[in-house]
Amino acid sequence: MTDRAYVLFEEQQQARGINLDQVKQQLKALKIETPSWGYGDSGTRFKTFQKVGVPRDPFEKFEDAAQVHKYTGIAPSVAIHIPWDKVDDYGKLRAHAENLGLKIGAVNPNLFQEDEYMLGSVTNADAAVRRKATDHLLECVDIAKETGSRDLSLWFADGTNYPGQGDIRKRKAWLYEALAEMYKALNPDMRMLIEYKTFEPAFYHTDLADWGMAYNMALKLGPQAEVLVDTGHHAQGINVEHIVAYLIDEKRLGGFHFNNRKYADDDLIVGTINPYELFLIFYQILNAAGDADASIRSHVGNIAYMIDQSHNIEAKIPAMIRSVLNVQTQYAKALLINHAEVQDAQERGDVLGAEDAVRRAFEFDVTPLLHAVREEQGLPADPMKAYLESSYGRDILARGKGGASW
Amino acid sequence: MTDRAYVLFEEQQQARGINLDQVKQQLKALKIETPSWGYGDSGTRFKTFQKVGVPRDPFEKFEDAAQVHKYTGIAPSVAIHIPWDKVDDYGKLRAHAENLGLKIGAVNPNLFQEDEYMLGSVTNADAAVRRKATDHLLECVDIAKETGSRDLSLWFADGTNYPGQGDIRKRKAWLYEALAEMYKALNPDMRMLIEYKTFEPAFYHTDLADWGMAYNMALKLGPQAEVLVDTGHHAQGINVEHIVAYLIDEKRLGGFHFNNRKYADDDLIVGTINPYELFLIFYQILNAAGDADASIRSHVGNIAYMIDQSHNIEAKIPAMIRSVLNVQTQYAKALLINHAEVQDAQERGDVLGAEDAVRRAFEFDVTPLLHAVREEQGLPADPMKAYLESSYGRDILARGKGGASW
Amino acid sequence: MTDRAYVLFEEQQQARGINLDQVKQQLKALKIETPSWGYGDSGTRFKTFQKVGVPRDPFEKFEDAAQVHKYTGIAPSVAIHIPWDKVDDYGKLRAHAENLGLKIGAVNPNLFQEDEYMLGSVTNADAAVRRKATDHLLECVDIAKETGSRDLSLWFADGTNYPGQGDIRKRKAWLYEALAEMYKALNPDMRMLIEYKTFEPAFYHTDLADWGMAYNMALKLGPQAEVLVDTGHHAQGINVEHIVAYLIDEKRLGGFHFNNRKYADDDLIVGTINPYELFLIFYQILNAAGDADASIRSHVGNIAYMIDQSHNIEAKIPAMIRSVLNVQTQYAKALLINHAEVQDAQERGDVLGAEDAVRRAFEFDVTPLLHAVREEQGLPADPMKAYLESSYGRDILARGKGGASW
Amino acid sequence: MTDRAYVLFEEQQQARGINLDQVKQQLKALKIETPSWGYGDSGTRFKTFQKVGVPRDPFEKFEDAAQVHKYTGIAPSVAIHIPWDKVDDYGKLRAHAENLGLKIGAVNPNLFQEDEYMLGSVTNADAAVRRKATDHLLECVDIAKETGSRDLSLWFADGTNYPGQGDIRKRKAWLYEALAEMYKALNPDMRMLIEYKTFEPAFYHTDLADWGMAYNMALKLGPQAEVLVDTGHHAQGINVEHIVAYLIDEKRLGGFHFNNRKYADDDLIVGTINPYELFLIFYQILNAAGDADASIRSHVGNIAYMIDQSHNIEAKIPAMIRSVLNVQTQYAKALLINHAEVQDAQERGDVLGAEDAVRRAFEFDVTPLLHAVREEQGLPADPMKAYLESSYGRDILARGKGGASW
Repeated sequence: MTDRAYVLFEEQQQARGINLDQVKQQLKALKIETPSWGYGDSGTRFKTFQKVGVPRDPFEKFEDAAQVHKYTGIAPSVAIHIPWDKVDDYGKLRAHAENLGLKIGAVNPNLFQEDEYMLGSVTNADAAVRRKATDHLLECVDIAKETGSRDLSLWFADGTNYPGQGDIRKRKAWLYEALAEMYKALNPDMRMLIEYKTFEPAFYHTDLADWGMAYNMALKLGPQAEVLVDTGHHAQGINVEHIVAYLIDEKRLGGFHFNNRKYADDDLIVGTINPYELFLIFYQILNAAGDADASIRSHVGNIAYMIDQSHNIEAKIPAMIRSVLNVQTQYAKALLINHAEVQDAQERGDVLGAEDAVRRAFEFDVTPLLHAVREEQGLPADPMKAYLESSYGRDILARGKGGASW
Repeated sequence: MTDRAYVLFEEQQQARGINLDQVKQQLKALKIETPSWGYGDSGTRFKTFQKVGVPRDPFEKFEDAAQVHKYTGIAPSVAIHIPWDKVDDYGKLRAHAENLGLKIGAVNPNLFQEDEYMLGSVTNADAAVRRKATDHLLECVDIAKETGSRDLSLWFADGTNYPGQGDIRKRKAWLYEALAEMYKALNPDMRMLIEYKTFEPAFYHTDLADWGMAYNMALKLGPQAEVLVDTGHHAQGINVEHIVAYLIDEKRLGGFHFNNRKYADDDLIVGTINPYELFLIFYQILNAAGDADASIRSHVGNIAYMIDQSHNIEAKIPAMIRSVLNVQTQYAKALLINHAEVQDAQERGDVLGAEDAVRRAFEFDVTPLLHAVREEQGLPADPMKAYLESSYGRDILARGKGGASW
Repeated sequence: MTDRAYVLFEEQQQARGINLDQVKQQLKALKIETPSWGYGDSGTRFKTFQKVGVPRDPFEKFEDAAQVHKYTGIAPSVAIHIPWDKVDDYGKLRAHAENLGLKIGAVNPNLFQEDEYMLGSVTNADAAVRRKATDHLLECVDIAKETGSRDLSLWFADGTNYPGQGDIRKRKAWLYEALAEMYKALNPDMRMLIEYKTFEPAFYHTDLADWGMAYNMALKLGPQAEVLVDTGHHAQGINVEHIVAYLIDEKRLGGFHFNNRKYADDDLIVGTINPYELFLIFYQILNAAGDADASIRSHVGNIAYMIDQSHNIEAKIPAMIRSVLNVQTQYAKALLINHAEVQDAQERGDVLGAEDAVRRAFEFDVTPLLHAVREEQGLPADPMKAYLESSYGRDILARGKGGASW
Repeated sequence: MTDRAYVLFEEQQQARGINLDQVKQQLKALKIETPSWGYGDSGTRFKTFQKVGVPRDPFEKFEDAAQVHKYTGIAPSVAIHIPWDKVDDYGKLRAHAENLGLKIGAVNPNLFQEDEYMLGSVTNADAAVRRKATDHLLECVDIAKETGSRDLSLWFADGTNYPGQGDIRKRKAWLYEALAEMYKALNPDMRMLIEYKTFEPAFYHTDLADWGMAYNMALKLGPQAEVLVDTGHHAQGINVEHIVAYLIDEKRLGGFHFNNRKYADDDLIVGTINPYELFLIFYQILNAAGDADASIRSHVGNIAYMIDQSHNIEAKIPAMIRSVLNVQTQYAKALLINHAEVQDAQERGDVLGAEDAVRRAFEFDVTPLLHAVREEQGLPADPMKAYLESSYGRDILARGKGGASW
């Protein structure tokens, strides 16, 4: 049935003027980074449910991640979190990753789990704490050099719980100071990706509250500093794809932390609560990918697509496969947008026509296309099914309970 | 200065037609219950900061709570959480409380920290899990009988993380089934207070999502079931005082879990982010307290005022003193509303006059009034200062780190 | 290509255990009511853009609505708004509708455009204003009897702008009083659909703020009173499909006012901002439609599906065709859910499996199915295209500018 | 009573280390601009209630505004809106204002009420429409030169209603193009204040959606471009005072449009829904006003405080007096913050102490202080009472109904 489905799909899309060869090529080029912490246990403030079979160390996390890449073919790198993934010998971890067909991706400093950071890390009123935090940032740059990572993903859980608790402007200056010191330590081909978040549990104010604050920091730091968009870090009602388009236009969109949410920073599987939002994000990206301006096109080519989720109740590896597939699915749909048709309707002031031209692409079932692409790459047509039919999920149960968590 | 301040305050209020004797009487009658868990360590999913001096067992929690009552005079009862406050002999705990001048307040079952509850407690698809959860509810009724508690505060962290994960209507039926079984076990003078919450970290749907669902359950269960309003459990933009007025009018407002928030369920100190909202809640309550209908007046008299907060970074005992004082302050301000004046403006369609009559009461400084009331009760004028000047905070440092937490 | 597409679709769905004959039957039974006011001009407080060709009277509105039904086949009734659609002779309007193949649908009273209603209609402190408002409700019942309408859709723009402006509980009592008087005037086969809305521009409190308040009114009024869910009338983050499931379970879901929104009550075309939410609403409805309890099944059969939108910038008739098609599309997708598969995963605690079983249905392209259904009904495969190719849109330009608006 | 109240207040504040002479001086220096459109009728999309006595032309609006200044002494300028306040001879309007003791304040272009602007003004895909819109901006610069206005307040109701409707990045470029042309036309002492708004009724995306977009435009335009913060233009949960502090630190906070809201852009009287937020905004401003950096201090001195409200149901002049008084009240409270005390607590990591030091200032009743200041300035102690006791409100009833509106 699949073959006939693809033939039909091909005819259908060709009739719409879509170049499927190019679409396939773009699908094959898509790379989605998974996070090492997504394979471990996580929870809420109320409870972390411990799962049997969760990896017990960074090496096992990479083994699990390799499964995601094995079946999907598009998850070749893994972000690490320091100190959760601290090892004595990063060369050994790197070799382990490479043996599994993986690369070490972005390095994520952790500035929220030391007692000293209770009132802030790089924004702490105590200079000694700021020094410690900045040293950790520098340590992560060093680690990135060892692991061959291009990107440092920076999320700060810095903020205040009450009005008056901290001096907002001083904290801003201290944050910049730390980032500037870190920036200087970067190799020329490395990037700092500055993440923002509007709210944090129990926070009155977050030091990096929105894209504007992250962008402003990046502007001041220099061209190697860019903004990282975590899709769950916005207030309700915010148009995330607008921010994406804006940052691309300013050539400061470093990448994404993908996830989904219903209310706050829920870190649910990307594409499960509002798949259309994910599609519309890719619409903005692909619109820019076809820009007349080569510098915009080149900027788009460097966007890092990363998953950042906490699987509180889900089986970890299948949850990650589902995440990767959901991103791929919405990307595939967005590739079916006929931008000339949209543009034509926009120029004619045809509101309904333009809306339809975008939404129509979303409504196609891209399963035949994805099956064809996977087949061409020697991958299973249905990666989830293939994984579930393998013995891996059962084998790792021997690891027992109480693996890595945060 | 205080005396002159009170004399002036008295003249000012008498000129407005406020009966200060009655106001003082109402202030003396205010009772605010503090939660045992507010004295222990708590945190976010990212980190629980451990404080030196945190109580190590339920008995020490009551000792700390006694300090709050000692200095404020209005916090004579303490809510307990089972199993966090599980003891072999509740008679002993009760005697300990009474020796400290305290009572054991509401009993709070905990249905979110057992591994079996990962996919729900009383709403779990597995009948055995529902049985276990219901048995815990019944156990808490038994405990309440032993502790002499009138109220059972019921908060369920039941919900689903993804569309399709659970059958919403079946879960509703299971929830009712458990509550009905519990209801039957109550003594005639006991109450079930059903709490609701619109969102929960990582939730797609919460089984008891809003006041309407809690109210509907209460209606079906019978007159001993009422609704518990946690001020931080609403979506942004919701008018909480409207819900309060509505539930009073239906005689189903069992009580409050007070706290404050900036974005989600932040459990910050009540009255620190939006004090006017707290004042407006009391405006609705006091408006009903003067109702012509005696059954409304009597209903209002039974509302339980409870704090429910998590002090992640704050010193625990002072945080609780601040909470109790903030509730008292806004209650005192609301007592200065001249309801006849408001009503008169309402009847004349005088929008600005009615608004002003309410807001003006908020703008008074009630410090002289509170000082006078405390003096009459033999309490320190400034409870926070008095506590901080005592040696208690230093003495408990001997408990060390690693006390009770959740 | 269409035929082959349908053959393939059929094989695919049969392999999943979906009974396509039944699906088609359900699709043919779907009826969506369009609102007369959706054909006229509307705007924001800033500006109403007047379109050429907008209907000048109720008769022309029905002519435009007939176009929507002609091409989609599923929009056979039109809701009216009094006094916007006030005519001397409702028999004449009814005959006109019937000649066009239409029925007059729900009657919507208007209680927000008279000067007297500035401080409330049925909740006004002035008894004379309440009388006037209640009389209008009774007038609408009379009109419904003349037009043969089953439903009265009740939306009240009643609320207060400032704290203290009105007595919330008195207003509640007055609202009930008016509804109770109206209820008594209903024929036994008529229904009152009570709409709620959490916020209103410039409102501090809305008298019917949420489903719980509408439901409570309905409970007190009697079985002919049900709740009307307008999808845009909730605070951000609210799970609307949960409310839908809840009301069905209580057999009090009267119907929907469909539309979509990004931030507030935007009245955008349904299915354009968050199509998955619409699908998930239908998932809940169809889950109940297969309930073992016949009274639930019968309740679901009476849900009224109505559009309620304001087309500020869109061409009116195409906007309505798009709306009807979007509802049909998501309903068709929801019909492809294999409920047994979902239920099986739910019972096994397979979170990812259950989520996938629901989402997978959403990802199918139902175009071949809809084309087949339309062909069987003698309708154009692509209703929008057929309408745009007709001369109707051009012909009505002769009406000029300045038609009906609100 | 007032004198004794002030004596007591003085002692109390002196004991806290507050320099009341300086406080009074700062209070006397506060200037709040009222908007000409706040004196006319306004409404929602549903209804504009027409009031008797509303000004019929710009000249009468200034007469009403003069009443607000006469009684409060701190509202000496009036913002105008073009074309609502278009007159043949701006010299004449200016002279009229000056005769009334007023100045013409900010000039506000209107780019949302022409039919051509349906799909955008300066962001319209049609170059001719953009030209027209830009010409209007230039016209407003010319008017500002005639009226002697320093500031041009720029709010654009530009955005799209649906995904795909417009090209977000092209619109960004067009917006910049228009602003850049306008910027060149400014005199060296003039400023462009760029307003942003996260949502707009029926909008999917707003071209200037947040402070970051406005700030970025300002950065590119040059030092005469600054950001205008309208307090009601943020998503729920956003910390506005953080944005204020951030913009001050970047020396790009041009001014405020003050108002309050419960849910969306409600344009309610400032300080009526959440007075503490207004106080906290002033806390940030006053913190910066005492900065060691003279350029920060000087920047703070140039912030424009403007009201921007729509009084749908309120009596217009009293509503404006209330607004001005509410701003003054919260400013006065913020002036009582002992910044050294706050800073000391911050440095010691005393969360509760710092919070208390800020909140305590809010809890003082500043009535005695304001009375004293007004007395020193020859103003009535209670401006609202004085106005209501005057005959002005009755005299203007002769204007009849149907005055200026939008």
